[in-house]
Amino acid sequence: MNGKNDLLEKIISLSKRKGFVYQSSEIYGGLNGCYDYGPLGSEMLRNIKDEWWRFMTYRDDVEGVDASILMSPEVWVASGHVENFTDPMIDCKNCKSRFRVDYLVDQIAVKKKTKILEALLSSVEDEGIKKAIDANLKKIAEKPDEVNDFITELFDSGEAAKLIAALNCPVCGTPGSFTPARKFNLMFKTFLGSVEETGSAIFLRPETAQGIFVNFGNVQGASRQKIPFGIAQIGKAFRNEINTRYFLFRTREFEQMEMQYFVKPSDDKKYYDYWKEERMNWFTKLGMKSENLRYHDHPANKLAHYAKEATDIEYKFPFGWGEIEGIHNRTDFDLGRHEQYSKKGLKYFDEETKEKYLPYIIETSAGASRSFLAFLVDAYDEEDLGGDTRTVLHLHPRLAPVKAAILPLVNKDGMPEFAKKIEDELRPKFKIFYDDKAAIGRRYRRMDEIGTPYAITVDTQTLEDNTVTVRERDSMEQIRVDASKLTGYLTEKLS
Amino acid sequence: MNGKNDLLEKIISLSKRKGFVYQSSEIYGGLNGCYDYGPLGSEMLRNIKDEWWRFMTYRDDVEGVDASILMSPEVWVASGHVENFTDPMIDCKNCKSRFRVDYLVDQIAVKKKTKILEALLSSVEDEGIKKAIDANLKKIAEKPDEVNDFITELFDSGEAAKLIAALNCPVCGTPGSFTPARKFNLMFKTFLGSVEETGSAIFLRPETAQGIFVNFGNVQGASRQKIPFGIAQIGKAFRNEINTRYFLFRTREFEQMEMQYFVKPSDDKKYYDYWKEERMNWFTKLGMKSENLRYHDHPANKLAHYAKEATDIEYKFPFGWGEIEGIHNRTDFDLGRHEQYSKKGLKYFDEETKEKYLPYIIETSAGASRSFLAFLVDAYDEEDLGGDTRTVLHLHPRLAPVKAAILPLVNKDGMPEFAKKIEDELRPKFKIFYDDKAAIGRRYRRMDEIGTPYAITVDTQTLEDNTVTVRERDSMEQIRVDASKLTGYLTEKLS
Repeated sequence: MNGKNDLLEKIISLSKRKGFVYQSSEIYGGLNGCYDYGPLGSEMLRNIKDEWWRFMTYRDDVEGVDASILMSPEVWVASGHVENFTDPMIDCKNCKSRFRVDYLVDQIAVKKKTKILEALLSSVEDEGIKKAIDANLKKIAEKPDEVNDFITELFDSGEAAKLIAALNCPVCGTPGSFTPARKFNLMFKTFLGSVEETGSAIFLRPETAQGIFVNFGNVQGASRQKIPFGIAQIGKAFRNEINTRYFLFRTREFEQMEMQYFVKPSDDKKYYDYWKEERMNWFTKLGMKSENLRYHDHPANKLAHYAKEATDIEYKFPFGWGEIEGIHNRTDFDLGRHEQYSKKGLKYFDEETKEKYLPYIIETSAGASRSFLAFLVDAYDEEDLGGDTRTVLHLHPRLAPVKAAILPLVNKDGMPEFAKKIEDELRPKFKIFYDDKAAIGRRYRRMDEIGTPYAITVDTQTLEDNTVTVRERDSMEQIRVDASKLTGYLTEKLS
Repeated sequence: MNGKNDLLEKIISLSKRKGFVYQSSEIYGGLNGCYDYGPLGSEMLRNIKDEWWRFMTYRDDVEGVDASILMSPEVWVASGHVENFTDPMIDCKNCKSRFRVDYLVDQIAVKKKTKILEALLSSVEDEGIKKAIDANLKKIAEKPDEVNDFITELFDSGEAAKLIAALNCPVCGTPGSFTPARKFNLMFKTFLGSVEETGSAIFLRPETAQGIFVNFGNVQGASRQKIPFGIAQIGKAFRNEINTRYFLFRTREFEQMEMQYFVKPSDDKKYYDYWKEERMNWFTKLGMKSENLRYHDHPANKLAHYAKEATDIEYKFPFGWGEIEGIHNRTDFDLGRHEQYSKKGLKYFDEETKEKYLPYIIETSAGASRSFLAFLVDAYDEEDLGGDTRTVLHLHPRLAPVKAAILPLVNKDGMPEFAKKIEDELRPKFKIFYDDKAAIGRRYRRMDEIGTPYAITVDTQTLEDNTVTVRERDSMEQIRVDASKLTGYLTEKLS
């Protein structure tokens, strides 16, 4: 763990201690790549999703849907996932054990990786590969994860045979006994219905986008929308990843917030640029620091098979820059494929120009779980207050899980009763935390640590003039507010 | 289809036409037992879930969580699902086809069912079974679904052999060639990780409750809650049902809204009664008609193995009374089992009484999808307006997918511009529909049909005195409101 990853460790520890995120099924030792959101985490995740939903669908040209996780298996044939959404796997010819190549690469010690790459370096002819191996040999100690990815790629290429010959089976130990690498699908497969047969195999969706594409006709018909318009969806997706890592960053179960914007093909560039900007704005408007965000445009030779243009919005995580959203010009690939495979017409008829065409799709695909992690990391701070350290989450008030704390100063003179009255008034409207334990300074710190933007204190003056103090988390400034005006005060601050 | 199910047909048709609910993967012929929520449906479902979340967790004694769908397989051993969550299955000894018994029973024509039951009636000794067969023979024509359930139960009992002997295989036609009925698990199974082996088999959760139980210690620790307190969760669950039926009522993928309330064992009755009443109130406060709701208490001999007391809240659907929520006294069964299987202490230490005990659990388990269907059915009406029929959804304003429609009366004199100005002001805060097409009467009807509670009309007077008319959906009364006060007006009406 280097200094930067200390921050990730701190976030993970805070998450567990305060109830943001737990390991899934923790009492049973956990389930790799799956996480549970606790009381504060589930509230904050809801807030992120609500903000996205309002931002994306409370406009006149975007409709929402909520499609099922289980879909017809033909969807994944048409989308290309059955054929292409794969990782290489190899079998041990001796003990018949089966391994994903990335898993196997992960298991090999750094020393052995170095040896394999050195041997390979002296045996390959291709200058490009030689150069790549050399570059990876240099960073093998400091960035082993990236080198793993590189070796996995080699396994999938013509150089696989030499690599395979250099390995021992991790189960039976036999050297060089592996089959060539074959493709293994990353989708979770299950069986539907009463009879287990090939025809009933279905998949957990690996992305929410397809639930939008297959509903294009239905939504357009019911909503009477005209091109350009979009369809938005929030929902879970599942990928049988081996290299789950970095806490919520790469998990097997995760949540997406996707919007597909259907445009006239000649307008694709215009709306690609528009959404690229809109989506970046969404993050910064919710308080994410601009210096921790950047675009990463995909070079033309690295584009996915369906994409004409693509960019990632990346966040500067403690472990490096990582994608939190992708904006893609998917062309008419998706609707074209679904038209071809379903034999249902998906063309749009433009009443003004009398043209009939397959719309192009500009996709904005954000990770809800990844955004959650980015917002948490971005908000985390340890402030030095003249020798004392204050841990604080500078979360945007609309994202903060608890909106206001009610803290009666001392337990006498009717203060708790007054505080309870305020609680009863605010609680149906806002997520409130009531705390009458420990010294007021400590209670403030507890609220800072979970990002509560406002702390309402009931003190002796309250009983005299009906005012309370409201302490603002970031500035730590306190102002007096009439207790009868708290609902209005908070409503305005949170809107 | 009888008269009552005509109503269900109307709801299904409206759902498709207006964009509430579509069949999943419809362009590929649909996926049985799975549904997609369209623009209006996804908004209404969100509203129902939001109302539930606020009602259940915006209080000082209930915390929220959002646990993953994939959980450790040991969870389902401890919960009893691996052993008990089953349906009987049989194989054809001749062609090796495998069938769920309920599927097979479903396939048998009513005439053949009658014959089998008659033959069985003359051969069984047990007076109780004789009586039950006789009762089912009487209702076989009018309630075939219930009789199917009865025959399926017989398959699972000692009388199975005689029934099996009377069947032909639906695939190869061989008579009486079936194996005895065996148990088939209703959980969807899939495989996690790089190696497909028994140890990596996991399940899609068949209920959200277990995600709460296994997090009891974590949530109690982080939230510092004291008994009694609850943990609430909304999320998807999956069951490999054969008898999917009645639209959204019994599906394979569905959403639950569950709350587990942890109490001192001696307080169980008190909180069971409390939640029984609270949950019924939730439905009626959101406008569901009392006469369409009832409790169905489970008799002591019909209780699930974990339950001490249980009641269903049932709604009067077009196809009969059906459960939309269950309230259960689950005792200490769940925490006891998880303590036993995980070897982790889950007892609660009561600081006041110094007692250490496993809390009892009062569960409130509502179906989000079923509630959605019940709210839709309950709201649907066809009103006779002096010869003309008005189709209207009397949805509670907080549940209605669109809150207000903006309808400029004619397309001239700056009315559209004025209407657009109102739209710009309202749209970020409320789900709005703008419609300037067709006669105003027809536009009102469109909004009635999707349950929009308020229709704002911009007319000639608007340009003179800045007022608009607001038409209320149910009374159809119109009042004039100052355009600058619309946000406040709607906020008040919707709160």
